[in-house]
Amino acid sequence: MKIVVIGASGTIGKAVSEELGKKHDIICAGRHGSDVQVDITSVESIKNMYKKIGKVDAVVSAAGGAHFGPLAELTPELNEFGIESKLKGQINIVLLGMDNINDGGSFTLTTGIMMDDPIPQGASAAMANGGVKAFVKSAAIEMPRGMRINSVSPNVLIESWDQYGDFFKGFEAVPVSRVALAYKKSVEGAQTGQNYEVY
Amino acid sequence: MKIVVIGASGTIGKAVSEELGKKHDIICAGRHGSDVQVDITSVESIKNMYKKIGKVDAVVSAAGGAHFGPLAELTPELNEFGIESKLKGQINIVLLGMDNINDGGSFTLTTGIMMDDPIPQGASAAMANGGVKAFVKSAAIEMPRGMRINSVSPNVLIESWDQYGDFFKGFEAVPVSRVALAYKKSVEGAQTGQNYEVY
Repeated sequence: MKIVVIGASGTIGKAVSEELGKKHDIICAGRHGSDVQVDITSVESIKNMYKKIGKVDAVVSAAGGAHFGPLAELTPELNEFGIESKLKGQINIVLLGMDNINDGGSFTLTTGIMMDDPIPQGASAAMANGGVKAFVKSAAIEMPRGMRINSVSPNVLIESWDQYGDFFKGFEAVPVSRVALAYKKSVEGAQTGQNYEVY
Repeated sequence: MKIVVIGASGTIGKAVSEELGKKHDIICAGRHGSDVQVDITSVESIKNMYKKIGKVDAVVSAAGGAHFGPLAELTPELNEFGIESKLKGQINIVLLGMDNINDGGSFTLTTGIMMDDPIPQGASAAMANGGVKAFVKSAAIEMPRGMRINSVSPNVLIESWDQYGDFFKGFEAVPVSRVALAYKKSVEGAQTGQNYEVY
Protein backbone atom coordinates (compact mmCIF):
# COMPACT_ATOMS: atom_id res chain seq x y z
CA MET A 1 0.00 0.00 0.00
CA LYS A 2 0.99 3.61 -0.52
CA ILE A 3 0.29 5.45 2.73
CA VAL A 4 0.66 9.10 3.66
CA VAL A 5 1.34 9.79 7.34
CA ILE A 6 0.56 13.39 8.28
CA GLY A 7 2.38 14.58 11.38
CA ALA A 8 5.09 12.03 10.65
CA SER A 9 7.77 13.76 12.70
CA GLY A 10 5.80 13.62 15.96
CA THR A 11 6.21 10.85 18.51
CA ILE A 12 3.15 8.97 17.29
CA GLY A 13 3.69 9.79 13.62
CA LYS A 14 7.23 8.46 13.73
CA ALA A 15 6.19 5.20 15.40
CA VAL A 16 3.31 4.71 12.95
CA SER A 17 5.59 5.38 9.98
CA GLU A 18 8.10 2.82 11.27
CA GLU A 19 5.45 0.19 12.00
CA LEU A 20 3.63 0.60 8.68
CA GLY A 21 6.90 1.11 6.82
CA LYS A 22 7.80 -2.54 7.40
CA LYS A 23 5.29 -3.57 4.74
CA HIS A 24 4.18 -0.43 2.93
CA ASP A 25 5.47 2.65 1.09
CA ILE A 26 5.22 5.63 3.42
CA ILE A 27 5.03 9.27 2.40
CA CYS A 28 5.86 11.45 5.39
CA ALA A 29 3.92 14.72 5.54
CA GLY A 30 4.08 17.51 8.06
CA ARG A 31 5.07 21.06 8.76
CA HIS A 32 8.81 20.42 8.81
CA GLY A 33 11.39 18.00 7.42
CA SER A 34 8.98 15.70 5.62
CA ASP A 35 8.64 14.32 2.10
CA VAL A 36 5.68 16.68 1.64
CA GLN A 37 5.08 19.89 3.55
CA VAL A 38 1.56 20.48 4.85
CA ASP A 39 -0.13 22.79 7.35
CA ILE A 40 -3.46 21.15 8.16
CA THR A 41 -4.97 24.45 9.36
CA SER A 42 -4.88 25.63 5.74
CA VAL A 43 -7.35 24.28 3.17
CA GLU A 44 -4.98 25.37 0.39
CA SER A 45 -2.06 23.56 1.97
CA ILE A 46 -4.04 20.31 2.28
CA LYS A 47 -5.15 20.61 -1.36
CA ASN A 48 -1.53 21.14 -2.44
CA MET A 49 -0.42 18.09 -0.46
CA TYR A 50 -2.95 15.88 -2.25
CA LYS A 51 -1.90 17.34 -5.62
CA LYS A 52 1.72 16.42 -4.88
CA ILE A 53 1.15 12.90 -3.57
CA GLY A 54 -1.53 11.78 -6.03
CA LYS A 55 -3.54 8.64 -5.33
CA VAL A 56 -2.85 6.74 -2.10
CA ASP A 57 -4.35 3.74 -0.35
CA ALA A 58 -4.42 5.17 3.14
CA VAL A 59 -4.15 8.50 4.91
CA VAL A 60 -3.07 8.57 8.54
CA SER A 61 -3.32 11.79 10.51
CA ALA A 62 -1.26 11.99 13.67
CA ALA A 63 -1.40 15.76 13.46
CA GLY A 64 -3.29 18.53 15.20
CA GLY A 65 -2.94 20.48 18.41
CA ALA A 66 -5.16 22.25 20.91
CA HIS A 67 -4.70 24.79 23.70
CA PHE A 68 -4.16 23.44 27.20
CA GLY A 69 -5.04 25.81 30.02
CA PRO A 70 -7.47 26.39 32.89
CA LEU A 71 -11.14 26.52 31.87
CA ALA A 72 -11.59 29.85 33.67
CA GLU A 73 -8.94 31.36 31.37
CA LEU A 74 -10.16 29.68 28.16
CA THR A 75 -11.34 32.33 25.70
CA PRO A 76 -13.07 31.86 22.35
CA GLU A 77 -9.76 32.93 20.79
CA LEU A 78 -7.65 30.33 22.63
CA ASN A 79 -10.26 27.66 21.87
CA GLU A 80 -9.83 28.48 18.19
CA PHE A 81 -6.46 26.68 18.07
CA GLY A 82 -8.04 23.27 18.73
CA ILE A 83 -10.93 24.08 16.38
CA GLU A 84 -8.62 25.03 13.51
CA SER A 85 -5.98 22.38 14.08
CA LYS A 86 -7.04 19.11 15.72
CA LEU A 87 -10.72 19.34 14.74
CA LYS A 88 -11.10 21.11 11.39
CA GLY A 89 -7.59 20.26 10.26
CA GLN A 90 -8.20 16.54 10.55
CA ILE A 91 -11.73 16.68 9.15
CA ASN A 92 -10.55 18.71 6.18
CA ILE A 93 -7.91 16.03 5.50
CA VAL A 94 -10.90 13.75 4.89
CA LEU A 95 -13.22 16.15 3.07
CA LEU A 96 -10.47 17.29 0.69
CA GLY A 97 -8.87 13.88 0.24
CA MET A 98 -11.71 11.54 -0.61
CA ASP A 99 -11.02 11.70 -4.35
CA ASN A 100 -7.34 10.91 -3.74
CA ILE A 101 -7.96 7.59 -2.01
CA ASN A 102 -8.06 4.39 -4.03
CA ASP A 103 -11.11 2.11 -3.78
CA GLY A 104 -11.13 0.29 -0.45
CA GLY A 105 -8.67 2.76 1.06
CA SER A 106 -8.86 4.32 4.48
CA PHE A 107 -8.50 7.39 6.65
CA THR A 108 -7.25 7.11 10.22
CA LEU A 109 -7.49 10.20 12.43
CA THR A 110 -6.32 10.86 15.99
CA THR A 111 -8.42 11.70 19.05
CA GLY A 112 -7.25 11.27 22.66
CA ILE A 113 -8.12 9.92 26.08
CA MET A 114 -9.08 13.26 27.68
CA MET A 115 -12.47 13.23 25.95
CA ASP A 116 -13.34 10.07 27.93
CA ASP A 117 -11.31 10.62 31.09
CA PRO A 118 -11.15 14.40 31.54
CA ILE A 119 -8.12 16.22 32.90
CA PRO A 120 -7.89 19.79 34.21
CA GLN A 121 -6.91 22.22 31.44
CA GLY A 122 -8.07 19.77 28.78
CA ALA A 123 -11.55 21.03 27.83
CA SER A 124 -10.54 22.46 24.47
CA ALA A 125 -8.62 19.34 23.47
CA ALA A 126 -11.52 17.16 24.66
CA MET A 127 -13.88 19.18 22.45
CA ALA A 128 -11.68 18.64 19.40
CA ASN A 129 -11.30 14.92 20.13
CA GLY A 130 -15.04 14.43 20.67
CA GLY A 131 -15.82 16.22 17.43
CA VAL A 132 -13.40 14.06 15.46
CA LYS A 133 -14.69 10.84 17.05
CA ALA A 134 -18.33 11.65 16.24
CA PHE A 135 -17.46 12.76 12.71
CA VAL A 136 -15.61 9.49 12.08
CA LYS A 137 -18.49 7.37 13.36
CA SER A 138 -20.98 9.24 11.19
CA ALA A 139 -18.86 9.65 8.05
CA ALA A 140 -18.14 5.90 8.02
CA ILE A 141 -21.70 5.10 6.94
CA GLU A 142 -21.39 7.31 3.87
CA MET A 143 -17.88 6.51 2.63
CA PRO A 144 -17.96 5.74 -1.09
CA ARG A 145 -16.11 2.94 -2.99
CA GLY A 146 -15.54 0.68 0.00
CA MET A 147 -13.49 3.32 1.77
CA ARG A 148 -13.17 3.18 5.54
CA ILE A 149 -12.53 5.71 8.31
CA ASN A 150 -11.47 5.21 11.93
CA SER A 151 -9.78 7.13 14.69
CA VAL A 152 -7.24 6.15 17.33
CA SER A 153 -7.55 7.54 20.85
CA PRO A 154 -4.19 7.28 22.61
CA ASN A 155 -3.59 7.53 26.33
CA VAL A 156 -0.65 9.73 27.36
CA LEU A 157 2.57 8.16 26.06
CA ILE A 158 5.43 6.85 28.16
CA GLU A 159 7.67 8.60 25.63
CA SER A 160 5.96 11.97 26.31
CA TRP A 161 5.63 11.58 30.06
CA ASP A 162 8.37 14.10 30.94
CA GLN A 163 6.60 16.73 28.84
CA TYR A 164 2.93 15.99 29.59
CA GLY A 165 2.89 13.80 32.71
CA ASP A 166 1.94 16.71 34.98
CA PHE A 167 -1.36 17.07 33.10
CA PHE A 168 -2.22 13.39 33.50
CA LYS A 169 -2.13 12.72 37.24
CA GLY A 170 -2.61 9.04 37.97
CA PHE A 171 -2.84 8.01 34.34
CA GLU A 172 -1.07 4.81 33.30
CA ALA A 173 0.99 5.90 30.31
CA VAL A 174 1.23 3.54 27.35
CA PRO A 175 4.16 2.84 25.02
CA VAL A 176 3.89 4.44 21.59
CA SER A 177 4.47 1.00 20.07
CA ARG A 178 1.04 -0.07 21.38
CA VAL A 179 -0.55 3.05 19.92
CA ALA A 180 1.10 2.38 16.55
CA LEU A 181 -0.58 -1.03 16.45
CA ALA A 182 -4.01 0.61 16.59
CA TYR A 183 -3.18 2.61 13.46
CA LYS A 184 -1.99 -0.63 11.83
CA LYS A 185 -5.32 -2.27 12.77
CA SER A 186 -7.19 0.62 11.17
CA VAL A 187 -5.12 0.65 7.98
CA GLU A 188 -4.69 -3.09 7.39
CA GLY A 189 -7.93 -4.29 9.01
CA ALA A 190 -11.47 -4.12 7.71
CA GLN A 191 -13.40 -2.22 10.37
CA THR A 192 -14.86 1.23 9.89
CA GLY A 193 -16.39 3.93 12.08
CA GLN A 194 -14.31 2.81 15.06
CA ASN A 195 -12.44 4.84 17.66
CA TYR A 196 -9.66 2.53 18.85
CA GLU A 197 -8.94 3.31 22.48
CA VAL A 198 -5.37 2.59 23.52
CA TYR A 199 -5.90 3.12 27.27
CA MET B 1 -34.31 30.81 39.75
CA LYS B 2 -33.66 33.28 36.98
CA ILE B 3 -33.02 31.30 33.81
CA VAL B 4 -32.11 32.39 30.30
CA VAL B 5 -33.22 30.07 27.52
CA ILE B 6 -31.32 30.67 24.29
CA GLY B 7 -33.14 29.49 21.19
CA ALA B 8 -36.40 29.95 23.04
CA SER B 9 -38.55 30.19 19.93
CA GLY B 10 -37.55 26.77 18.61
CA THR B 11 -39.56 23.62 19.25
CA ILE B 12 -37.31 22.50 22.10
CA GLY B 13 -36.68 26.00 23.44
CA LYS B 14 -40.40 26.71 23.66
CA ALA B 15 -41.11 23.45 25.52
CA VAL B 16 -38.21 24.04 27.92
CA SER B 17 -39.33 27.61 28.59
CA GLU B 18 -42.85 26.39 29.35
CA GLU B 19 -41.67 23.54 31.60
CA LEU B 20 -39.19 25.65 33.56
CA GLY B 21 -41.52 28.66 33.50
CA LYS B 22 -43.89 26.87 35.90
CA LYS B 23 -41.48 27.51 38.77
CA HIS B 24 -38.86 29.95 37.53
CA ASP B 25 -38.39 33.34 35.87
CA ILE B 26 -37.51 32.78 32.22
CA ILE B 27 -35.68 35.19 29.95
CA CYS B 28 -36.20 34.17 26.33
CA ALA B 29 -33.21 34.77 24.08
CA GLY B 30 -32.78 34.12 20.38
CA ARG B 31 -32.41 35.63 16.97
CA HIS B 32 -36.01 36.77 16.64
CA GLY B 33 -38.95 37.78 18.80
CA SER B 34 -37.35 37.18 22.17
CA ASP B 35 -36.84 39.20 25.35
CA VAL B 36 -33.17 39.48 24.37
CA GLN B 37 -31.77 39.20 20.86
CA VAL B 38 -28.67 37.07 20.40
CA ASP B 39 -26.79 35.49 17.52
CA ILE B 40 -24.63 32.77 19.06
CA THR B 41 -22.25 32.74 16.08
CA SER B 42 -21.08 36.20 17.19
CA VAL B 43 -18.87 36.63 20.26
CA GLU B 44 -19.94 40.28 20.48
CA SER B 45 -23.61 39.35 20.38
CA ILE B 46 -23.19 36.81 23.20
CA LYS B 47 -21.30 39.40 25.27
CA ASN B 48 -24.09 41.92 24.69
CA MET B 49 -26.71 39.40 25.76
CA TYR B 50 -24.94 38.79 29.06
CA LYS B 51 -24.58 42.55 29.62
CA LYS B 52 -28.32 42.98 29.14
CA ILE B 53 -29.50 40.07 31.31
CA GLY B 54 -27.00 40.45 34.17
CA LYS B 55 -26.60 37.64 36.70
CA VAL B 56 -28.67 34.49 36.21
CA ASP B 57 -28.89 31.11 37.92
CA ALA B 58 -29.01 28.97 34.81
CA VAL B 59 -28.31 29.23 31.10
CA VAL B 60 -30.03 26.79 28.76
CA SER B 61 -28.97 26.62 25.12
CA ALA B 62 -31.40 25.02 22.72
CA ALA B 63 -29.73 26.88 19.86
CA GLY B 64 -27.34 26.06 17.08
CA GLY B 65 -27.57 24.52 13.65
CA ALA B 66 -25.42 22.49 11.28
CA HIS B 67 -25.42 21.65 7.57
CA PHE B 68 -27.20 18.45 6.53
CA GLY B 69 -26.07 16.98 3.25
CA PRO B 70 -24.28 14.00 1.67
CA LEU B 71 -20.74 13.42 2.93
CA ALA B 72 -19.40 13.36 -0.63
CA GLU B 73 -20.69 16.93 -1.08
CA LEU B 74 -19.58 18.21 2.33
CA THR B 75 -16.95 20.92 1.88
CA PRO B 76 -14.87 22.68 4.54
CA GLU B 77 -17.06 25.73 3.86
CA LEU B 78 -20.37 23.89 4.42
CA ASN B 79 -18.93 22.22 7.53
CA GLU B 80 -18.22 25.69 8.88
CA PHE B 81 -21.90 26.29 9.67
CA GLY B 82 -21.97 23.56 12.33
CA ILE B 83 -18.58 24.66 13.65
CA GLU B 84 -19.65 28.30 14.04
CA SER B 85 -23.19 27.66 15.25
CA LYS B 86 -23.87 24.42 17.13
CA LEU B 87 -20.28 23.84 18.29
CA LYS B 88 -18.52 27.16 18.88
CA GLY B 89 -21.75 29.06 19.46
CA GLN B 90 -22.74 26.87 22.37
CA ILE B 91 -19.22 26.64 23.82
CA ASN B 92 -18.84 30.42 23.65
CA ILE B 93 -22.12 30.75 25.59
CA VAL B 94 -20.22 28.98 28.39
CA LEU B 95 -16.82 30.64 28.01
CA LEU B 96 -18.31 34.14 27.88
CA GLY B 97 -20.98 33.54 30.50
CA MET B 98 -19.19 32.00 33.46
CA ASP B 99 -18.93 35.32 35.32
CA ASN B 100 -22.67 35.93 34.79
CA ILE B 101 -23.80 32.78 36.58
CA ASN B 102 -24.54 32.87 40.29
CA ASP B 103 -22.77 30.42 42.62
CA GLY B 104 -24.17 26.93 42.15
CA GLY B 105 -25.72 27.84 38.81
CA SER B 106 -25.67 25.76 35.66
CA PHE B 107 -25.24 25.61 31.92
CA THR B 108 -27.24 23.14 29.82
CA LEU B 109 -26.27 22.72 26.17
CA THR B 110 -27.83 20.67 23.37
CA THR B 111 -26.27 17.81 21.41
CA GLY B 112 -28.28 15.20 19.44
CA ILE B 113 -28.75 11.52 18.75
CA MET B 114 -26.92 11.42 15.40
CA MET B 115 -23.54 11.42 17.14
CA ASP B 116 -24.43 8.06 18.71
CA ASP B 117 -26.70 6.62 16.03
CA PRO B 118 -25.45 8.07 12.73
CA ILE B 119 -27.72 9.04 9.86
CA PRO B 120 -26.80 9.74 6.24
CA GLN B 121 -26.13 13.46 5.69
CA GLY B 122 -25.49 13.97 9.40
CA ALA B 123 -21.67 13.92 9.68
CA SER B 124 -21.29 17.65 10.24
CA ALA B 125 -24.03 17.75 12.88
CA ALA B 126 -22.54 14.66 14.55
CA MET B 127 -19.18 16.41 14.70
CA ALA B 128 -20.70 19.45 16.40
CA ASN B 129 -22.66 17.30 18.85
CA GLY B 130 -19.63 15.17 19.73
CA GLY B 131 -17.52 18.26 20.34
CA VAL B 132 -20.13 19.77 22.65
CA LYS B 133 -20.58 16.52 24.58
CA ALA B 134 -16.84 16.08 25.18
CA PHE B 135 -16.43 19.75 26.13
CA VAL B 136 -19.24 19.47 28.68
CA LYS B 137 -17.78 16.33 30.25
CA SER B 138 -14.35 17.92 30.53
CA ALA B 139 -15.41 21.44 31.54
CA ALA B 140 -17.53 20.01 34.37
CA ILE B 141 -14.43 19.10 36.40
CA GLU B 142 -13.17 22.69 36.32
CA MET B 143 -16.35 24.69 36.90
CA PRO B 144 -15.80 27.25 39.67
CA ARG B 145 -18.15 28.21 42.56
CA GLY B 146 -20.18 24.99 42.53
CA MET B 147 -21.35 25.63 39.00
CA ARG B 148 -22.51 22.70 36.88
CA ILE B 149 -22.67 21.92 33.17
CA ASN B 150 -24.60 19.24 31.28
CA SER B 151 -25.93 18.60 27.81
CA VAL B 152 -29.16 17.07 26.54
CA SER B 153 -29.09 14.79 23.51
CA PRO B 154 -32.57 14.60 21.97
CA ASN B 155 -33.81 12.02 19.53
CA VAL B 156 -35.77 13.38 16.57
CA LEU B 157 -38.98 14.95 17.87
CA ILE B 158 -42.52 13.82 17.11
CA GLU B 159 -43.28 17.52 16.68
CA SER B 160 -40.58 17.86 13.98
CA TRP B 161 -41.24 14.57 12.22
CA ASP B 162 -42.87 16.12 9.15
CA GLN B 163 -39.81 18.29 8.63
CA TYR B 164 -36.98 15.90 9.57
CA GLY B 165 -38.47 12.40 9.54
CA ASP B 166 -36.96 11.58 6.15
CA PHE B 167 -33.47 11.93 7.62
CA PHE B 168 -34.25 9.58 10.51
CA LYS B 169 -35.40 6.34 8.88
CA GLY B 170 -36.59 3.86 11.48
CA PHE B 171 -36.00 6.18 14.43
CA GLU B 172 -38.61 6.21 17.17
CA ALA B 173 -39.39 9.89 17.58
CA VAL B 174 -39.89 11.25 21.09
CA PRO B 175 -42.30 13.94 22.34
CA VAL B 176 -40.68 17.29 23.08
CA SER B 177 -42.24 17.13 26.55
CA ARG B 178 -39.87 14.25 27.39
CA VAL B 179 -36.91 16.22 26.09
CA ALA B 180 -37.92 19.23 28.19
CA LEU B 181 -37.76 17.06 31.31
CA ALA B 182 -34.07 16.36 30.67
CA TYR B 183 -33.35 20.10 30.69
CA LYS B 184 -35.33 20.36 33.93
CA LYS B 185 -33.22 17.55 35.41
CA SER B 186 -30.08 19.38 34.42
CA VAL B 187 -31.22 22.78 35.79
CA GLU B 188 -32.94 21.67 39.00
CA GLY B 189 -30.89 18.55 39.71
CA ALA B 190 -27.38 18.27 41.10
CA GLN B 191 -25.47 16.26 38.49
CA THR B 192 -22.70 17.67 36.34
CA GLY B 193 -20.73 16.57 33.26
CA GLN B 194 -23.67 14.53 32.01
CA ASN B 195 -25.09 14.14 28.51
CA TYR B 196 -28.74 13.23 29.08
CA GLU B 197 -29.86 10.99 26.24
CA VAL B 198 -33.57 11.24 25.43
CA TYR B 199 -33.69 8.31 22.98
